Amino acid sequence: MPTIDEVLNRIDANQSAALDRLFELLKIPSVSTDPHYKADCARAAQWLVDELNRIGFQASVRPTEGHPMVVAHAKATRPDAPHVLFYGHYDVQPADPLELWETEPFAPRIVDTPTGRQIVARGASDDKGQLMLFVEACRAYMETGGLPCHVTILFEGEEECGSSSLPAFLAANKKELSADIALVCDTNMWDRQTPAITTMLRGLVYEEVIIRAATRDLHSGMFGGPAANPIRVLGKVIAGLHDDAGRVTIPGFYDGVEELPEDVARQWGELKFDPRKFLAEVGLSVPAGEAGRTVLEQIWARPTCEANGIIGGYTGEGAKTVLPAEARAKISFRLVGRHNPEKIVQAFHAYVRSAIPDDCRVEFLSHGASPAIVLPFTSEVLTRARRALHQEWDREPALVGSGGSIPIVGQFKTDLGLDALMVGFALENDKIHSPNEKYELTSFHKGARSWARILTALAV
Amino acid sequence: MPTIDEVLNRIDANQSAALDRLFELLKIPSVSTDPHYKADCARAAQWLVDELNRIGFQASVRPTEGHPMVVAHAKATRPDAPHVLFYGHYDVQPADPLELWETEPFAPRIVDTPTGRQIVARGASDDKGQLMLFVEACRAYMETGGLPCHVTILFEGEEECGSSSLPAFLAANKKELSADIALVCDTNMWDRQTPAITTMLRGLVYEEVIIRAATRDLHSGMFGGPAANPIRVLGKVIAGLHDDAGRVTIPGFYDGVEELPEDVARQWGELKFDPRKFLAEVGLSVPAGEAGRTVLEQIWARPTCEANGIIGGYTGEGAKTVLPAEARAKISFRLVGRHNPEKIVQAFHAYVRSAIPDDCRVEFLSHGASPAIVLPFTSEVLTRARRALHQEWDREPALVGSGGSIPIVGQFKTDLGLDALMVGFALENDKIHSPNEKYELTSFHKGARSWARILTALAV
Repeated sequence: MPTIDEVLNRIDANQSAALDRLFELLKIPSVSTDPHYKADCARAAQWLVDELNRIGFQASVRPTEGHPMVVAHAKATRPDAPHVLFYGHYDVQPADPLELWETEPFAPRIVDTPTGRQIVARGASDDKGQLMLFVEACRAYMETGGLPCHVTILFEGEEECGSSSLPAFLAANKKELSADIALVCDTNMWDRQTPAITTMLRGLVYEEVIIRAATRDLHSGMFGGPAANPIRVLGKVIAGLHDDAGRVTIPGFYDGVEELPEDVARQWGELKFDPRKFLAEVGLSVPAGEAGRTVLEQIWARPTCEANGIIGGYTGEGAKTVLPAEARAKISFRLVGRHNPEKIVQAFHAYVRSAIPDDCRVEFLSHGASPAIVLPFTSEVLTRARRALHQEWDREPALVGSGGSIPIVGQFKTDLGLDALMVGFALENDKIHSPNEKYELTSFHKGARSWARILTALAV
Repeated sequence: MPTIDEVLNRIDANQSAALDRLFELLKIPSVSTDPHYKADCARAAQWLVDELNRIGFQASVRPTEGHPMVVAHAKATRPDAPHVLFYGHYDVQPADPLELWETEPFAPRIVDTPTGRQIVARGASDDKGQLMLFVEACRAYMETGGLPCHVTILFEGEEECGSSSLPAFLAANKKELSADIALVCDTNMWDRQTPAITTMLRGLVYEEVIIRAATRDLHSGMFGGPAANPIRVLGKVIAGLHDDAGRVTIPGFYDGVEELPEDVARQWGELKFDPRKFLAEVGLSVPAGEAGRTVLEQIWARPTCEANGIIGGYTGEGAKTVLPAEARAKISFRLVGRHNPEKIVQAFHAYVRSAIPDDCRVEFLSHGASPAIVLPFTSEVLTRARRALHQEWDREPALVGSGGSIPIVGQFKTDLGLDALMVGFALENDKIHSPNEKYELTSFHKGARSWARILTALAV
């Protein structure tokens, strides 16, 4: 087995070629939620398989009913080494609104900024940049003598659209995917200098609600007044989801939501975090969530309900005097603690049914449901990873929560019995899911070195 | 001057050719609200000018900053004859949603139904079919000896998108457009056998409201909770526009709105009207307007506020976990009595500003504002028109209100000092503004005969 310095030196020497490889992957528009990009998703999966096989993995594309999985295996030099299962996703969010991108979203480029160089492209941060760090760390080990851990890699192609093929795939391949610990890379650093390990993740329930009234679009002069208007009904449904203190009104919504333990609350209080700055960076100034909760609590430890999209009636230029036959909204919930996703879905449906007039019908489409997840502060894996990150970054990593859900982590826990170590090198301002998404070149370089150190730390 | 029977016989003889002419006009997709169809609007205007010149009018296309006007003049055989100003509009509503049309919206066809033959196309009823009736009536007079009234025709191309060029055009051409009475054709029959004269029209204020919060789209996991969500804010704005009794909550909204005079209320009570049937025809069963008001009152004599369109966030297939930077809605008001459009606009803006949090900004776009209008029941013109319609249809015409506004009628009153006689032959189920719009062949034939009779009645 190579020394850690040999591996780190190899990562440094490989940087330029590593960047070329990442760019190749970023050029593939693997937008999973839009069927138009189906072939591109398949192409991204095949590119990863080819790359992993080239390094020395046994990698293959594994078809599903949706976009394919990538699975790869490589042995450690020591047979009794621990076994890690690394997870990432090669699919990306839609690039729209396209007109707000400064350059093409799928034509990656390096941009010089006062704080350093950045990689700009859809997926640069979420999640292609992040997952390639681990691939490059493995490459460095394999080029210098071999891996310190047995490694299984699972790359998914449906993370951004509900991971609908994942449960069946995990169930069908439970044995092949068995390991001692899962490594998940889809998270942030605390700040530009401070690495972070994410120990709490909010879950997600994503529902679409369609309100229908008349059997056809109506003229708002002829029918305005006596005819039910689905947009008004939907407005009432959305307005009724929260009370004036920002709390969700759905009966039972806070069942299973616990107050933060004192020691965690204390640690979060000590983190340097400026809620005004957090909001000011996106042009806001007034915290809009639950009254009486800090912003960190709101995004890491409190459940939410948000409207993510709405459409109904005439939305083109100018005026059309129409009462539409239907209106629809996408409504999502962030879950925490022991929130039960199924119960949230049922309670939401019951709330909507109770809020609409007799003359309206409602249809629901489900776009995913996953529970929240917590990694115990006392775990041995966490201790080793903290030490490895400290060595690379020369400061103690922050132990944080994350507002965004990573469904796979819940699935690993329930289906494979695996805890997950969540380490990622994205920054809060990476504009993931937004125009001009970027990833720091520092993250790309020191992130690969960090994963190399973690693999050694876990194996000792 | 020809006898009325000579003119009616000529209309009968011209029917087949008249239908061919209407089809030519219906084939032109003159959608005024969408800039994409600008050339088609110009083409429709030119087609009408050519047609009117062929009959013997002095007709011309008159450019505006928007779509052009058509103006045409023809003298009566008697110099001291009364002078009528006939108004119609050649522009049509967008055809979307296209997938709900059984055939192409701009490929007119005749459909046989159990209740008679129908012309199916966008604009068949609103307003190309209706305006061609008057053109055909004039043609029959001019082919048989001459007109009984001096006739000026004004065809507009922006009725469906706010008539923004109209006020300046009326002001600049006030003398040329002077007349004794305006004839407006954009209204309905009471039912298939009963003609109607519309004596009350609701006005219209049409506003677009854009709510903006963050400077960019946000990830709903990273920011869900503390960041203001424009869709939720807009939902609250829309939900707050009405109280539980269906009354509009905007302060001052009911200023200038009067109760119906007793005699009018009595006449409406005697009209055969089944609110259940009215709603059932569009798949509804529960009147949704102001509590304690009949459906006829709600659509003819009461003001309303409706949402006509809404859009924000991700509206494509599947899920996107986004908090959008903005959301927008089109909100319109129907005005009655002496409602002041400007005051309604101001009151609406004030309401929205008061309803949004400090962190949000609001922008308004105005898409038109016109007052309500009332024609006195005692007017001589009304008496003569009633007699003419009685002769053609063999029953007394209903004197009705209309929920839809016709901005021109208010403009004629304020800018030209003209009352308007509103007679039209559309039916409630013509699906105007909706897919599969149609116009009854009976309306097309007896409507032209009706206008011929009205011209004679006004001249006697």
